[in-house]
Amino acid sequence: MPPEVSDVFERERLWETVETLGAIGETADGGIVRVTGNDADEAARDTVVGWFEDAGLDVSIDPVGNVVGRRSGRRDLPPVVTGSHLDTVPNGGRFDGAAGVLAALEVVRGWNDADVETDHPLDVVVFTEEEGTRFGTGLLGSLVASGALAPETALAFEDDTGRTLGEALEAIGYRGSASFDLTTATAFVELHVEQGPKLDDSGVPIGVVESIAGITHHDVRIEGESDHAGNTPMDRRADAFMGAAQLARTLEDTVREASERTVGTVGRVEVSPNATNVVPGAVELGVDLRDPDGSRLDAVVSEVRREAEAIADRRGLGIEWETSLRIDPREMDPAVIEAIATAAEECGLRSRRMESGAGHDAMNAAPVVPSGMVFVPSEDGVSHSPAEYTAPAELHGGTEVLGQALRGLAETEGALSSVDTPEGRPSGRTE
Amino acid sequence: MPPEVSDVFERERLWETVETLGAIGETADGGIVRVTGNDADEAARDTVVGWFEDAGLDVSIDPVGNVVGRRSGRRDLPPVVTGSHLDTVPNGGRFDGAAGVLAALEVVRGWNDADVETDHPLDVVVFTEEEGTRFGTGLLGSLVASGALAPETALAFEDDTGRTLGEALEAIGYRGSASFDLTTATAFVELHVEQGPKLDDSGVPIGVVESIAGITHHDVRIEGESDHAGNTPMDRRADAFMGAAQLARTLEDTVREASERTVGTVGRVEVSPNATNVVPGAVELGVDLRDPDGSRLDAVVSEVRREAEAIADRRGLGIEWETSLRIDPREMDPAVIEAIATAAEECGLRSRRMESGAGHDAMNAAPVVPSGMVFVPSEDGVSHSPAEYTAPAELHGGTEVLGQALRGLAETEGALSSVDTPEGRPSGRTE
Repeated sequence: MPPEVSDVFERERLWETVETLGAIGETADGGIVRVTGNDADEAARDTVVGWFEDAGLDVSIDPVGNVVGRRSGRRDLPPVVTGSHLDTVPNGGRFDGAAGVLAALEVVRGWNDADVETDHPLDVVVFTEEEGTRFGTGLLGSLVASGALAPETALAFEDDTGRTLGEALEAIGYRGSASFDLTTATAFVELHVEQGPKLDDSGVPIGVVESIAGITHHDVRIEGESDHAGNTPMDRRADAFMGAAQLARTLEDTVREASERTVGTVGRVEVSPNATNVVPGAVELGVDLRDPDGSRLDAVVSEVRREAEAIADRRGLGIEWETSLRIDPREMDPAVIEAIATAAEECGLRSRRMESGAGHDAMNAAPVVPSGMVFVPSEDGVSHSPAEYTAPAELHGGTEVLGQALRGLAETEGALSSVDTPEGRPSGRTE
Repeated sequence: MPPEVSDVFERERLWETVETLGAIGETADGGIVRVTGNDADEAARDTVVGWFEDAGLDVSIDPVGNVVGRRSGRRDLPPVVTGSHLDTVPNGGRFDGAAGVLAALEVVRGWNDADVETDHPLDVVVFTEEEGTRFGTGLLGSLVASGALAPETALAFEDDTGRTLGEALEAIGYRGSASFDLTTATAFVELHVEQGPKLDDSGVPIGVVESIAGITHHDVRIEGESDHAGNTPMDRRADAFMGAAQLARTLEDTVREASERTVGTVGRVEVSPNATNVVPGAVELGVDLRDPDGSRLDAVVSEVRREAEAIADRRGLGIEWETSLRIDPREMDPAVIEAIATAAEECGLRSRRMESGAGHDAMNAAPVVPSGMVFVPSEDGVSHSPAEYTAPAELHGGTEVLGQALRGLAETEGALSSVDTPEGRPSGRTE
């Protein structure tokens, strides 16, 4: 029996949290630099924990700094989990990650106001280091919470200065000891901004994610010889940056040829010694390759790598290629997809099923717990940028759908398995 | 009348200064980071000033931090000037710049031991910010000393953090008020490591520089749009780094086609926001283009710039091209060239006349005072690298030639104009 739509979520109250949180870590040009363990991360966590506690949530911190706020259920059942992350890319925006945490908070506040009770507890989670900006591995908190990465391994990850995640979390007071285990949860639902143009282009306010494209990250180190830019003839150089430039061009060509849905990016570039009058001796590249088709993704990665090695060989450069992240494409759970689509309908909001090109913590949740995602529009599809924007009404609409879907999943024991999927299948874990 | 060769320069004493100075600013992997105004720069200056004072030099500091140590002459005449610089590129070596300062110091020490007196005073100079690493303009100290750049303009130059040269010099105690004016000097001679392979390849210990290739530096800013690396299709991107990579490839092709003596480097690359999972929104490049032929240099710069603008246009990127340095190819003074060649002969050392692909403070001196350079070998031609090396005997040989040439120029008033050049021309300023 679907729960009734209750108009208990307040747009202004929700937007106030967006503005308060968005000011934390904001730089002079309006972008946000909230990186795991920096001052802004600490302040953002403290602020959100304060809101959680004011909303009556029981807050705990797990060993890798995942923050969990529990709203009790009527019965001692496994929780329904929702949430997202607070860290940003360097000079990022106010919505990526934050939207999902703040929408979940508003769900709790709205339920409190309306005295909503559920059989299952509701856990609101803030995952650590989703972006992977500082410690090199994205979706880190959910990797640990889903059992795919041991906490002690994650805690030993080092940033560029040799500081470990454990030390960084210790320093801001977010290295906890509570257990947080997604594998024992009932369901996981994450609200997120689309970070692409489809919803905004089509004017549909709600995206129901069916699958998430496969993601690979590669750290590529090219070794040449640093030399004087004036006295070294062109044919006696081993210029690491020229090799890197050729690699980038080849990557672009290969990706464009693979398919319209394949994307490739050289997003991080570190040149050494990085002086105008010195031939670069070494370059490190952060390469991102994605495809919704797992086998095509593997083929593209292999081809780019083979080409890169051939370029290095021809130019007398050394090359090391280390794949730091590889996540298969993930299907969301049919029953959770259906629960979200139904919720949108109940809220009177149009929705469309779609694929996510961006990776999300839901990718790690999906193999171990029935999972789904609610997308809200990103203006002009812009994301990972200070220009990132989702209108108050759109975020509020997404929150209504999230709340409605979570209520459907949490209110009554066994609700998830009673959801009729289009294929008539019961819900279950997808691999 | 040529002065006699006096074997007063001590190899061990000279080498000790190389080793002491080389330890200042040394990093874990053996490279040196002595950048204008950093702690290592301050320590290196303090050390050298101490040596200057111990050697009886009268030390003064000019407004842009050029350090001048004067050895008095018998008469009140304009000085003969020698010296070089102490700053390094990031992760540079022990010889670039330092060799010329330490050889000059050894000349003073040797002359003191042998009670050498000269009509002209000898000024040993340490030029500020030769590399241009921190404030973006290379050969800065000599630009000011030669009257080509106003001190107040130079002092207002800012580093990447917005700190001015004036503030940086103030902080290390090297913002002086003494006057140092190359335009009133008698001659300028700089000893430097070759930073190329010719002397080492040929086994000739002394290079007599006849000309220095023209140098241009360009700050190129490419503006795209930072966006999510997963959700932005390839044909909706304005990826600033892909534009930069294509520019680098075009630059390499253009330079190779221009001539064997043309060189081009993209030595500095700053990607923003510089995260693996974000399409680069902006890239700044430091571009170095050089050619001994001034008009060919201009043609290459124009072509690369035109191509870069066409690439930006096709990719929907913005581009700003700012030429931060342009120094014409410079001829050294025929009489000073002759004085150095004669000195080498008198010291019993083989020499060869050559061209410098690297820029030196002598480029700024050349238009305003008769100038010349002594090159000593760089092992394997390596420079701007921790592997930079000149053997003790080679540096000592260069010091003997420098001392002999300086004595010839300083000992007797009017010595320079009495040097017979091969063409029989008197010495004079060259433009």
